[in-house]
Amino acid sequence: MGLERWKTVELPIVHDSRGNLTFIESNRHVPFDIKRVYYLYDIPGGAQRGGHAHKTLQQMLIAMSGSFDVILDDGFVRQTLSLNRGYCGIYLEKLIWRELVNFSSGAVCMVLASDFYDESDYYREYDEFIKAVRGTPEALGNKALHE
Amino acid sequence: MGLERWKTVELPIVHDSRGNLTFIESNRHVPFDIKRVYYLYDIPGGAQRGGHAHKTLQQMLIAMSGSFDVILDDGFVRQTLSLNRGYCGIYLEKLIWRELVNFSSGAVCMVLASDFYDESDYYREYDEFIKAVRGTPEALGNKALHE
Repeated sequence: MGLERWKTVELPIVHDSRGNLTFIESNRHVPFDIKRVYYLYDIPGGAQRGGHAHKTLQQMLIAMSGSFDVILDDGFVRQTLSLNRGYCGIYLEKLIWRELVNFSSGAVCMVLASDFYDESDYYREYDEFIKAVRGTPEALGNKALHE
Repeated sequence: MGLERWKTVELPIVHDSRGNLTFIESNRHVPFDIKRVYYLYDIPGGAQRGGHAHKTLQQMLIAMSGSFDVILDDGFVRQTLSLNRGYCGIYLEKLIWRELVNFSSGAVCMVLASDFYDESDYYREYDEFIKAVRGTPEALGNKALHE
């Protein structure tokens, strides 16, 4: 992919007939201290999670089981990526709107984050996010929004 | 359980009709910096992983999907615990022999660790581990080994 602000990452994998092992170390496989790990599970097939962006937080998303799609948007370009392997992650810089959609039954989404939970770090409204990354909509003139 | 060296931990859970969310923060829900996250997946049903212990490493084990059993042994007492929920973890101090057995098909075992991988931190042989935690077998006299 041509964008710098998010990227797919192939993580290390140790193959073994008893199962595979993937590891992620702070500041080695992610460019931050892993302060927080969270995961979504018991997700109904086909569900989706409401979008948001972070003011400063960096994250790595991984499909630990099953599959789901990640819609990414930096305010100018929108891209959808699929995750369905334990050794593939998506690294996200700050200021990226993300939506998680199309969960398979039994999917588990793990997220490694660069900081503790802080509600004030969230953009919960897309308009508010766009304003932060593009300035006021009026100032943009005719510049099209990823269309 | 009556032992101090390992304990089951009920992790926070945010219930939601679109799926549940559990989070673990460094030095809050585990008593260490999360330096390393690793996970076992694509595990054949019924498989088991060879045992080992760590000289200094602390860990938290979680069943992200499916289920498995964890055999724990501090050199004096042996206990088997089952993991099968995303919001239950087992915290392990250093110097605990562990074996992972009885994996269900599709199980995923996630481990949060207090340090980077270091082969010199492992006890790979049970006899070597017992010697470290109990002194030489000869010195133990008639003291029974967890029987």
